[in-house]
Amino acid sequence: MSNMHIKIIGCKSLKNIPFEKKPIGCKDVIWRYSGNPIIKRDSLKCSNSIFNSAVVPYGDRFAGVFRVDDRRRNMQLHAGFSDDAVNWILDEKKIEWLNGINTVGDDKTSEINPWQYGYDPRVVFIEDRWWVTWCNGLDWKPTIGVGYTFDFKKFVQCENAFLPFNRNGVLFPRKIQNKYVMLSRPSDSGHTPFGDIFISQSPDMKYWGEHRHVMSPKHPWESKKIGAGPIPIETSEGWLCIYHGVLESCNGFVYSFGAAILDIDEPWKVKYRCSEYLLSPQEIYECAGDVPNVTFPCAALCDPDTGRLAIYYGCADTHVGLAFAQVDELVEHIIKKNF
Amino acid sequence: MSNMHIKIIGCKSLKNIPFEKKPIGCKDVIWRYSGNPIIKRDSLKCSNSIFNSAVVPYGDRFAGVFRVDDRRRNMQLHAGFSDDAVNWILDEKKIEWLNGINTVGDDKTSEINPWQYGYDPRVVFIEDRWWVTWCNGLDWKPTIGVGYTFDFKKFVQCENAFLPFNRNGVLFPRKIQNKYVMLSRPSDSGHTPFGDIFISQSPDMKYWGEHRHVMSPKHPWESKKIGAGPIPIETSEGWLCIYHGVLESCNGFVYSFGAAILDIDEPWKVKYRCSEYLLSPQEIYECAGDVPNVTFPCAALCDPDTGRLAIYYGCADTHVGLAFAQVDELVEHIIKKNF
Amino acid sequence: MSNMHIKIIGCKSLKNIPFEKKPIGCKDVIWRYSGNPIIKRDSLKCSNSIFNSAVVPYGDRFAGVFRVDDRRRNMQLHAGFSDDAVNWILDEKKIEWLNGINTVGDDKTSEINPWQYGYDPRVVFIEDRWWVTWCNGLDWKPTIGVGYTFDFKKFVQCENAFLPFNRNGVLFPRKIQNKYVMLSRPSDSGHTPFGDIFISQSPDMKYWGEHRHVMSPKHPWESKKIGAGPIPIETSEGWLCIYHGVLESCNGFVYSFGAAILDIDEPWKVKYRCSEYLLSPQEIYECAGDVPNVTFPCAALCDPDTGRLAIYYGCADTHVGLAFAQVDELVEHIIKKNF
Amino acid sequence: MSNMHIKIIGCKSLKNIPFEKKPIGCKDVIWRYSGNPIIKRDSLKCSNSIFNSAVVPYGDRFAGVFRVDDRRRNMQLHAGFSDDAVNWILDEKKIEWLNGINTVGDDKTSEINPWQYGYDPRVVFIEDRWWVTWCNGLDWKPTIGVGYTFDFKKFVQCENAFLPFNRNGVLFPRKIQNKYVMLSRPSDSGHTPFGDIFISQSPDMKYWGEHRHVMSPKHPWESKKIGAGPIPIETSEGWLCIYHGVLESCNGFVYSFGAAILDIDEPWKVKYRCSEYLLSPQEIYECAGDVPNVTFPCAALCDPDTGRLAIYYGCADTHVGLAFAQVDELVEHIIKKNF
Amino acid sequence: MSNMHIKIIGCKSLKNIPFEKKPIGCKDVIWRYSGNPIIKRDSLKCSNSIFNSAVVPYGDRFAGVFRVDDRRRNMQLHAGFSDDAVNWILDEKKIEWLNGINTVGDDKTSEINPWQYGYDPRVVFIEDRWWVTWCNGLDWKPTIGVGYTFDFKKFVQCENAFLPFNRNGVLFPRKIQNKYVMLSRPSDSGHTPFGDIFISQSPDMKYWGEHRHVMSPKHPWESKKIGAGPIPIETSEGWLCIYHGVLESCNGFVYSFGAAILDIDEPWKVKYRCSEYLLSPQEIYECAGDVPNVTFPCAALCDPDTGRLAIYYGCADTHVGLAFAQVDELVEHIIKKNF
Amino acid sequence: MSNMHIKIIGCKSLKNIPFEKKPIGCKDVIWRYSGNPIIKRDSLKCSNSIFNSAVVPYGDRFAGVFRVDDRRRNMQLHAGFSDDAVNWILDEKKIEWLNGINTVGDDKTSEINPWQYGYDPRVVFIEDRWWVTWCNGLDWKPTIGVGYTFDFKKFVQCENAFLPFNRNGVLFPRKIQNKYVMLSRPSDSGHTPFGDIFISQSPDMKYWGEHRHVMSPKHPWESKKIGAGPIPIETSEGWLCIYHGVLESCNGFVYSFGAAILDIDEPWKVKYRCSEYLLSPQEIYECAGDVPNVTFPCAALCDPDTGRLAIYYGCADTHVGLAFAQVDELVEHIIKKNF
Repeated sequence: MSNMHIKIIGCKSLKNIPFEKKPIGCKDVIWRYSGNPIIKRDSLKCSNSIFNSAVVPYGDRFAGVFRVDDRRRNMQLHAGFSDDAVNWILDEKKIEWLNGINTVGDDKTSEINPWQYGYDPRVVFIEDRWWVTWCNGLDWKPTIGVGYTFDFKKFVQCENAFLPFNRNGVLFPRKIQNKYVMLSRPSDSGHTPFGDIFISQSPDMKYWGEHRHVMSPKHPWESKKIGAGPIPIETSEGWLCIYHGVLESCNGFVYSFGAAILDIDEPWKVKYRCSEYLLSPQEIYECAGDVPNVTFPCAALCDPDTGRLAIYYGCADTHVGLAFAQVDELVEHIIKKNF
Repeated sequence: MSNMHIKIIGCKSLKNIPFEKKPIGCKDVIWRYSGNPIIKRDSLKCSNSIFNSAVVPYGDRFAGVFRVDDRRRNMQLHAGFSDDAVNWILDEKKIEWLNGINTVGDDKTSEINPWQYGYDPRVVFIEDRWWVTWCNGLDWKPTIGVGYTFDFKKFVQCENAFLPFNRNGVLFPRKIQNKYVMLSRPSDSGHTPFGDIFISQSPDMKYWGEHRHVMSPKHPWESKKIGAGPIPIETSEGWLCIYHGVLESCNGFVYSFGAAILDIDEPWKVKYRCSEYLLSPQEIYECAGDVPNVTFPCAALCDPDTGRLAIYYGCADTHVGLAFAQVDELVEHIIKKNF
Repeated sequence: MSNMHIKIIGCKSLKNIPFEKKPIGCKDVIWRYSGNPIIKRDSLKCSNSIFNSAVVPYGDRFAGVFRVDDRRRNMQLHAGFSDDAVNWILDEKKIEWLNGINTVGDDKTSEINPWQYGYDPRVVFIEDRWWVTWCNGLDWKPTIGVGYTFDFKKFVQCENAFLPFNRNGVLFPRKIQNKYVMLSRPSDSGHTPFGDIFISQSPDMKYWGEHRHVMSPKHPWESKKIGAGPIPIETSEGWLCIYHGVLESCNGFVYSFGAAILDIDEPWKVKYRCSEYLLSPQEIYECAGDVPNVTFPCAALCDPDTGRLAIYYGCADTHVGLAFAQVDELVEHIIKKNF
Repeated sequence: MSNMHIKIIGCKSLKNIPFEKKPIGCKDVIWRYSGNPIIKRDSLKCSNSIFNSAVVPYGDRFAGVFRVDDRRRNMQLHAGFSDDAVNWILDEKKIEWLNGINTVGDDKTSEINPWQYGYDPRVVFIEDRWWVTWCNGLDWKPTIGVGYTFDFKKFVQCENAFLPFNRNGVLFPRKIQNKYVMLSRPSDSGHTPFGDIFISQSPDMKYWGEHRHVMSPKHPWESKKIGAGPIPIETSEGWLCIYHGVLESCNGFVYSFGAAILDIDEPWKVKYRCSEYLLSPQEIYECAGDVPNVTFPCAALCDPDTGRLAIYYGCADTHVGLAFAQVDELVEHIIKKNF
Repeated sequence: MSNMHIKIIGCKSLKNIPFEKKPIGCKDVIWRYSGNPIIKRDSLKCSNSIFNSAVVPYGDRFAGVFRVDDRRRNMQLHAGFSDDAVNWILDEKKIEWLNGINTVGDDKTSEINPWQYGYDPRVVFIEDRWWVTWCNGLDWKPTIGVGYTFDFKKFVQCENAFLPFNRNGVLFPRKIQNKYVMLSRPSDSGHTPFGDIFISQSPDMKYWGEHRHVMSPKHPWESKKIGAGPIPIETSEGWLCIYHGVLESCNGFVYSFGAAILDIDEPWKVKYRCSEYLLSPQEIYECAGDVPNVTFPCAALCDPDTGRLAIYYGCADTHVGLAFAQVDELVEHIIKKNF
Repeated sequence: MSNMHIKIIGCKSLKNIPFEKKPIGCKDVIWRYSGNPIIKRDSLKCSNSIFNSAVVPYGDRFAGVFRVDDRRRNMQLHAGFSDDAVNWILDEKKIEWLNGINTVGDDKTSEINPWQYGYDPRVVFIEDRWWVTWCNGLDWKPTIGVGYTFDFKKFVQCENAFLPFNRNGVLFPRKIQNKYVMLSRPSDSGHTPFGDIFISQSPDMKYWGEHRHVMSPKHPWESKKIGAGPIPIETSEGWLCIYHGVLESCNGFVYSFGAAILDIDEPWKVKYRCSEYLLSPQEIYECAGDVPNVTFPCAALCDPDTGRLAIYYGCADTHVGLAFAQVDELVEHIIKKNF
């Protein structure tokens, strides 16, 4: 779209991005797909629910890593493919991580890090491969698991990035100042009653340091905790970061999502932050389910030519939902509502 | 209705009160409006939700003060008007309280009491003006804010009635024994896990004293906490007080509403108290929403000629609902179920 | 059904057991009745809700003891009858327990054990009468109440089986090694944040001892607490026990149900235990209601000739639901998924 | 002492009971031994602490079962002997319970009930043997262990009396109406934030029933929880029961002790109850230690001829202390302060 | 002392004020009396403890109102007298409050406000009488009781100043701008895990309003909650207010005390606030007792001629302690350490 | 001592190590210094308390970094020196950390990491300098601060090692397999109700990875949480690690200390672990103070020639204590009590 003020950087054209026009009368900058939820809880024989999941363009098609809770309610990761990014075929078998051969060495991690559980994956292409991060159980304590794949069939697990207790580890889509950069949300061992977004840096995806604080909860809709969402999108205004925020009412949590723009070179500096949430649980498939009142963004597709954005989000920790936006409208909204 | 046994006192005729007959087969003394919810959560451009709100007859029309939570989830008050008390036009801008010139003095409260938040308003006409009470943030701690308006356009804020921590301040519609009288529910700083109804008295709406305990939780449906609801209605049996009560299950709170009859001259004395709730969350718009399982009565219109009663209540802290009753049937029910 | 591998023992033929075939495409071993919920919350004039309840074959018809929470939200027990086990007529009046004349003595329990509350009943025929167990308030503390009836009209209360704090007391349908045997779930005074299944034995239904631990929570779907459900069904593989398990998410509890097979003679020994839940809250009448996300099995009818099983379960602590299974398919599933 | 108004029943003369006269100026009915604490925390090579313990007359000497927490802080029971009931020699080895041969059968309990932990023992002679009760770990959950000894060398473990969760099981020193009778304090799995005293009955020390509520906390000094202490002493006024009560301040618990008189034949009926505590933590060895502010009575010696009473109590969960009283003065005090 | 820079206003000369010189080497501005504690816990026959208490000059002698917890651990108030303000004779009987005849009316409060409990009294002379404030149980909920005496023998109770939940109500020693002024600490129903100091005003000691926030916790030593202490002392720099602050460690609360200087005419404005505590629990009688680690200032005597200050404080909620300071040194210290 | 079986590796001779012989009759392997506490709480003008602190040999003398809580109760670090390691002179001024120039770069950390608080330091010499680690506030959240000094006068701060929330970071005294190695205890934001010991590795003291789990709580004395203590001591049996463990009683925490032997090359493997604590709070200066019942080891001096060990530990978070052991006796004890 030639008249976009905001430039999207480093994304390849994505002509087949799923999209619907904004409904007439809609006053929001993000709107839901009319066919929601796109992946239902019982799509797999083994699945109790399929929700917070990551999808990416993959050749002419789409691929993804999906959070699937099985009928024991164990949390697993499954791979899947799609032609249109709306209808998905997921592998009935969970991902079996190979013995981790790290990019900077060849130590074995399998003995150290046997699979216990994994959830809320993110996927991003950097340099030569698809990196996967997720919440990984280390001695049954949550931390950020790191692995990669070239084909979404064979997956290799590397060293965990951090010590427990951590969740929502999200990589930037390229090195910044020659270092890998990751957002994460350190917190505690339980149902995470607090949490800020931090950033860490690594020369080699194995050792991490130079930790910086990025954002604390600020507005009531996110006052309990916040956590990074989809892979940040590079724009001419900075890194566009969609994230989730949680409000605690007297009857439980409400997970909404909002957005901020981070500085390109020093992404621990927040340039703009939207004071209002962008989408909150209002549809019945978001309000009722295994965890009521949750909308949890986990991945986004973006077409730089049209500025179209397709956001994948978990609904009530039960299904996968899809929502749309225009990047320039969204960025301008964030700047306008900055506070 | 000439055959009413219960006299309604001090209310003006209200021919255009909204009303529907009790549905056939309905076994309750309070029944819902068929068009519920009457005000939806996103009726304003800025609104996340519109719920616990106060409406009054205003000339030939109706006016009100509404709780509107914006998209930051800040709690605000907005004024609104209606011709039929069902379809409402709310001001897109929140109420801007003027520098409080109190009835008994001229001290400035603006410096002392800058606007922080306000919620759950009640409105009542006493003597010459519409008094508004609400839950007001004093140094970010909840207490009972007091103000007034003559026209629902210009609003003047006075001194807070009490020290924190207090909620659900409800004025009686006339002076009793030459004093203003207010119900309130002192509690704590958080999500209020307990609370009784107390009464306080004031010669001048500025200084308050002679505090009395009125009611504690008594029956299971209200066993967690109780709080006053609409402005009490004077009847030949005493003050008809609709109030909310909260039960805590293993999966959260359930807000129902019930009623009691207080002594006319010593309203801290309970004459009758309905042992059963009158309405509880059962419709989907009451069971699901930002705060599930909430029905919260905040205002009532009453026509003394017909005994018709229209009760406005918050639904799931998300929408405004409307319910109907006949005062004489209601009062008789309270007396019959007194325990 | 002649080709059943699993023998059902000690159940009489039940030709009129309610049943529907498994829906096409259904991948589960338990499926819901298409007319759910079968008993609605407001079926009685006094009822707020009717849910965790026990039904049994009774002559050519069916009888039952029902949990009815009244509009004070007091927990009561009511008797009821049905011709088809789907459409029920419940007594408007709660059960009035007679002065307990115990089987092994004649001491009076009425003075000691005045009625305070009762919930979650189970009913079973042993030897000459229908025994009823339920959660009974002793000095307002929950324990296992014991009583009996011959006709579901006159009910006699005996001594409580145990000291508080206990819930979910479930008798086996015959003596084992000459002793009455009961499952129960000791826990604490509040909303029961933990609980295992234990077993106790009695020579006379009055004094209890030889307590054994049976099962702790094991899999995530039941990780918070577990409790016995319907009366165990004797099969050639062991006692088939359907039980409920609870998972605590960050937004509350989820009550699912699963099953285990216990040893015939030493029923504190678990032979097989299904690692997956069998049914979890997924329908709106299970996800929303007075207690969201609850499916709570409390009784089962079984026809030994066809292997048909009809399971009665509470839905969201609000209504009664019905689900079906084939015993042999169910038992084989438990064995296959044993872990 | 010929002029005693209160008769002590069923105790043998105990001329060598340890005793000191009440100090001059002492205004209390219970006074401490001047040589307190009599057993220090490190009296055994393995001991971290020795405290809540039971002593009895044994031939011309004294014997006892002692709570010894070892240096892993595991809770163990050790036997011990003394010539004067002040200076004690404890066995360095913990009691090894023999395979339980119960009084009414010969079932094996060792497989069912392997030793996990034991604490707060009580010892009483009934009929032909010394019965021991203690808080016993059943599947790591506290309940009342039951066993016996004839010689304080060989100890036999029987069936646990109750299901978890229970503590402070205290037997009466004779059958009442042909049944064994035990006080206990059902509570929960943790640090017991609540608890009343109940009573249970058994024909055979194996099966228990006819549970009755005895006492709830009543006065501030015992407002958190109460639990039975030494074996009740039969007097002409009723059963003299010394018990502990706990107050929770903003800085932790305070364990004091008081007393009540129970009806001889229906000991669930409280005849008198001393509204004031009798002894509270005031000495430094009671205020500081592993658990500050604890005085916990666990055993008492009584000489019926002189009315002398020697009470053994745990000090700060660290040492054993000794205090004295005159039974008639104590009983009269209880009656006078009854409320 | 002619060279004092700080003027003490409105205090009468008090030549017999108890005092000791600062010990050599002492680096603090407040130092303890060498004979501490001056009143021991068991000074009365009925007393469990005597601590947070108020003393005043009374003619040539001294009088006071004392917190006495009896042996039920009920909280009571007792009057007492002393010649030297160190050795005290307390009345064995608790204060019996007379039917409240208020200064501005003659309504009866006895029916409304029966004695339930009272603690932490303050006493101040205003105009013609000694006013007493304390924490008073209204329907067993704490609020600020108000009463007066002319002779410390006959005490009259008036209306409570505020609604619950409130503690530490402290009157200023004169009207300010023609109104009575009171500090208080609104909080909640339990062990008060939070609390700020507020101020309220009254024309008549009966109705209260114009509430203002004064101070929140600021430094770690007071980070949990703060509350006013002795009656403020008027000085040329402002009102000298000694107050307590509480730090919560992992093992409980620590009550220290500090000080602030408030504006003379608008005492809700803090002029200076000492960033450091002035005295904290360090002596064994402050660290061990019914509530460990408490030093709680409740009253102060001041001699304007010498600037001597004698502060009475509760020790471990068990005894009364005494500490000394020089007003000018103290005020200068507050100003120097202001932050 | 020529007959030592256990070799101490990598420690220089330390002839002037403070030491006292084991007292006669002492049955423990660690015994207290007779002059405890060696540093009192008020040794500095500004100090509220001085406790968990690190000391090292420094030339012929001794140096150290000390935790000093000031009178605001802010947590600070101070340097100090001593001739005999018993009598210390501490700097009245807290350490001012210089702008961090890291070993592997020259980035500035001062802007990122302004001083907020620091506590519980450890000091170790590696290669060419004294490294200091401590609990450092990053955005007021605790993590492991890293810095160094050459002279205990000038201190340089580097990058924090980890993301919050972490405490008790303890470096090994040499590189292992060419990497710096650090123990730490990740936990949460509050008073740390849980915690295991983990290990992390770094090529450059800036970026950290290869995180491994080392130990969880195992025995009751340490069942709440554990954390590393002094710098590990290399011996022929492995790394001797003294650590603290915490038990939670109903009246708060008890901090004792124990020890384990870790594998030399793979120090995340535990070779032996002493099942019993070695020292627990038993002296009054350990049981009473700002945090009662704490003995917290933070540093140790070791003389390889004699095997003498001097352990410095915090007493009740108030003072510094000193205890002694013989390394060979200690190691043999650990092996013997391994479980």
